[in-house]
Amino acid sequence: MGAGIARNLLRAGHEVTVYNRTREKAEALKPDGAQVAASAAEAANGVDAVSTMLSDDEAVEEVVFGEKGIASVLNSGAVHISHSTISAALAKRLAKQHEQRGQGYLSAPVFGRPEAAESKKLIVVIAGPTELTQKFRPFFDAIGRKTFIVGAESYKANVAKLCGNFMIASMLEAFSEAFATIGKSGIERQAFLDIMSELFGSPVYTNYGATIAGEKFEPAGFALKLGFKDIRLVLQAAQEEAVPMPLASLLRDQFLSAIAHGEQDLDWSGVSRVSSRNAGL
Amino acid sequence: MGAGIARNLLRAGHEVTVYNRTREKAEALKPDGAQVAASAAEAANGVDAVSTMLSDDEAVEEVVFGEKGIASVLNSGAVHISHSTISAALAKRLAKQHEQRGQGYLSAPVFGRPEAAESKKLIVVIAGPTELTQKFRPFFDAIGRKTFIVGAESYKANVAKLCGNFMIASMLEAFSEAFATIGKSGIERQAFLDIMSELFGSPVYTNYGATIAGEKFEPAGFALKLGFKDIRLVLQAAQEEAVPMPLASLLRDQFLSAIAHGEQDLDWSGVSRVSSRNAGL
Amino acid sequence: MGAGIARNLLRAGHEVTVYNRTREKAEALKPDGAQVAASAAEAANGVDAVSTMLSDDEAVEEVVFGEKGIASVLNSGAVHISHSTISAALAKRLAKQHEQRGQGYLSAPVFGRPEAAESKKLIVVIAGPTELTQKFRPFFDAIGRKTFIVGAESYKANVAKLCGNFMIASMLEAFSEAFATIGKSGIERQAFLDIMSELFGSPVYTNYGATIAGEKFEPAGFALKLGFKDIRLVLQAAQEEAVPMPLASLLRDQFLSAIAHGEQDLDWSGVSRVSSRNAGL
Amino acid sequence: MGAGIARNLLRAGHEVTVYNRTREKAEALKPDGAQVAASAAEAANGVDAVSTMLSDDEAVEEVVFGEKGIASVLNSGAVHISHSTISAALAKRLAKQHEQRGQGYLSAPVFGRPEAAESKKLIVVIAGPTELTQKFRPFFDAIGRKTFIVGAESYKANVAKLCGNFMIASMLEAFSEAFATIGKSGIERQAFLDIMSELFGSPVYTNYGATIAGEKFEPAGFALKLGFKDIRLVLQAAQEEAVPMPLASLLRDQFLSAIAHGEQDLDWSGVSRVSSRNAGL
Repeated sequence: MGAGIARNLLRAGHEVTVYNRTREKAEALKPDGAQVAASAAEAANGVDAVSTMLSDDEAVEEVVFGEKGIASVLNSGAVHISHSTISAALAKRLAKQHEQRGQGYLSAPVFGRPEAAESKKLIVVIAGPTELTQKFRPFFDAIGRKTFIVGAESYKANVAKLCGNFMIASMLEAFSEAFATIGKSGIERQAFLDIMSELFGSPVYTNYGATIAGEKFEPAGFALKLGFKDIRLVLQAAQEEAVPMPLASLLRDQFLSAIAHGEQDLDWSGVSRVSSRNAGL
Repeated sequence: MGAGIARNLLRAGHEVTVYNRTREKAEALKPDGAQVAASAAEAANGVDAVSTMLSDDEAVEEVVFGEKGIASVLNSGAVHISHSTISAALAKRLAKQHEQRGQGYLSAPVFGRPEAAESKKLIVVIAGPTELTQKFRPFFDAIGRKTFIVGAESYKANVAKLCGNFMIASMLEAFSEAFATIGKSGIERQAFLDIMSELFGSPVYTNYGATIAGEKFEPAGFALKLGFKDIRLVLQAAQEEAVPMPLASLLRDQFLSAIAHGEQDLDWSGVSRVSSRNAGL
Repeated sequence: MGAGIARNLLRAGHEVTVYNRTREKAEALKPDGAQVAASAAEAANGVDAVSTMLSDDEAVEEVVFGEKGIASVLNSGAVHISHSTISAALAKRLAKQHEQRGQGYLSAPVFGRPEAAESKKLIVVIAGPTELTQKFRPFFDAIGRKTFIVGAESYKANVAKLCGNFMIASMLEAFSEAFATIGKSGIERQAFLDIMSELFGSPVYTNYGATIAGEKFEPAGFALKLGFKDIRLVLQAAQEEAVPMPLASLLRDQFLSAIAHGEQDLDWSGVSRVSSRNAGL
Repeated sequence: MGAGIARNLLRAGHEVTVYNRTREKAEALKPDGAQVAASAAEAANGVDAVSTMLSDDEAVEEVVFGEKGIASVLNSGAVHISHSTISAALAKRLAKQHEQRGQGYLSAPVFGRPEAAESKKLIVVIAGPTELTQKFRPFFDAIGRKTFIVGAESYKANVAKLCGNFMIASMLEAFSEAFATIGKSGIERQAFLDIMSELFGSPVYTNYGATIAGEKFEPAGFALKLGFKDIRLVLQAAQEEAVPMPLASLLRDQFLSAIAHGEQDLDWSGVSRVSSRNAGL
């Protein structure tokens, strides 16, 4: 994901220094004009803004608060922009800790896969202090097809992102159960998929529906274990506001059953195997 | 619904005789060239095909198998086309009973509201003997924007329709839970709706999302009690094939809770009130 | 079940005529003093009261309302006592139809397995017109260890019985999930069972817990498919009163998954295999 | 809880020093022979064994690992016995950390309310190194009616305790749903309770059933918010072993809905209000 974002920033005329644990991934951006740093701290040193795109809360905590973490080197007045899909709780902590150091913080999670990042088709959801969301608006417009500002407290962008992933996961489960019934009723899965494509008129339905109908869960566009993480995080965010989300609870159980069967590295649409198994398919 | 379908058949040059329990509704089609019958039996008498569009299994059973029902007057060789969203079990029985009388039968449920019927934008899902689906193809193309044939056994169209309604109801529940969390987290509902519109790119999401965000459940486009009926029917169809559908079970419980609160005549998106209540909103 | 009940009635000094589709089963009661009828109608002819103990709604409907059914031969003033676990809806219909014929009707479902019926340890739950429940009280006391009267409308006994079976099935599911976690955590199942026996102090927990811990689901004390039927019936009874029962919905899905795996003839505690499978065990 | 345990230890002839944040509670044990410490550290200093009975993970972490925590003062060779209902994860950490300090650790959660602790009727579930569980067996026998050893790794006692609480909470939910149906069907709640008492023959059913039937949720024997905590912990323990527990997920949602309605301080059987509300009662 980070590569596509970096390339679009370079195209938009920004100076970009990149860091990745796998150095070759960073080096690959040199032809596009990126400078390569030897560590996250080096990349964050002296810049106006540092963006992070990491897999989960633990990775973000290490990179930001670990020894020689970003928080310890970032200039006062500079801004940390977090694109990762993390918990609302961590976003709150990031905002607080950066503020105590005189640093700015924006949550800016994105919807879209690596290809969308490359082709500037990400949907960017941002939240944070108004002066920062205004100032960095062009930055976000440079990396995505559309930018949405959802509030002045940064964690709200994370809650919105988690709820969005919950919406997609709900569709995956609905398709999974429907296809189990369609299949055992002797109806062509493709026929049902065609009807749903026409009914919803949504590429998300058409694409995921095709994946589930065709059971092509590898390679994973978005790993099932990461989907499980996001469902846990949306449940946690909802719990903090005392909101029951029974459909999210159901998703949690289905994803956990997939993990119990060793399917954590499939695409998250592979959760449909749980419905198939429970139907004796 | 029936009025829009009839008008489109008249526009396509068919001769149409209409019947409705409320005679004025039938009379309203006279200017469009329809003849008005005094009973369903009279409408079905001597024709090549009779279409029924009724609210539930009970209504279909009465009109078809009741005293002076359609089955008793329809010519041998003529065809009954059922547009109603009915159970797979009843569709099987209709196919069998009509066959025993030398009559044809097609299940042809539709997706779309009355406005869509008027403007020839229905999605028509048909199943039945191949010679009949081929012969009546122009008939279906005359009333909808797209026709899908899902099999040679008529009940399969009903299963597909029920699964489609399940897909929509699942989206309603997902939106309901997400909006409860969004709302209690202090995020503007409209902002989340805008993101979901962009993410899914589906008018179904945009329209139902707006209804739920704005809590405008009256007048009902599709009554909650009818949605409840369809969820029960999809569970029943899945049960016959031994397929658990835990998300459909959840929907059943949520719709039933809405009914317990007297909300059966709201639009089915009003099921979101259950999530709101359970969140203390 | 019927044999045990009949023997206890004979022991209590009643005259008993028995009928079973499998004649040998009826003949086996001759040594105890029973007379054997060639049909249900013959057994019901001329008696003060006729008891039925059948497997489901369909069987009861056939025996009562079928050609030469009980309803058609029972004397005016005589009483039909139904011990079967049937739907509340059918109980309402039985009460009404018998009343129209001048016959009495009592619902008297029982808790307990065939051994309990033999040893007069059934729990008998009855409902119906007060004069009848009073009059037949000694009859019920003769066949069970305790009699409970739950109302003057007969169907109430059926609702109470269905809710009771739901309580047991809920315990089965709770044990199933707990044992899956206990097992995968490397804890001896027997140790957990011992603690639960001590905690609840209930033979129902001790016995079913042992069955699930030891996975001894054959021969079936109570077949899983009958348990599934009862869960569907409790959901139906609750639906008629607009009561969501999400735990009953979960049970329905779990039992249906067991049926999808061909486990319908196991003891209903065999539903625990669904939890095992979903945990990858 | 701690007072009852301490009194039984004193009765058994042990020397006991007690500490409570509310000093009066500790002082109240003086007449029974207890010495009173000014801090947890003082109580733990120089003893053979220190027992803790605290409300949750956070409290245990503070008392054990906080500044002047038990871990920092306990003699090498001495043992920490934790009676609290805590997470399996924390139990694993306690075992590890104490071991690194040359201290012993036993998990010994208990079933029973304060009255049971006073009257030596607790059920004690212990796990830890065999030499310790053997050595301290008399200690546990002195405070409860029965002691169960479930393994050599201490966290297993916590998993067993959490699963036990899950079993009770499942019964609460089953009763809640059944009583909603019973009530709306016009059946006396007491009649159903009497049948369930006879059927299960368990004081747990009889007592909690009476609480729910009579809706007497105050004062709380065990607070709903603590029940919610335990359900979260059992889900967490199950997640670590990749075990879906859909009934536990349902419980989580129901308890969370109760909390959303401000019912966190009711007895946990007050979760039945959620079922009542969803049934429109």
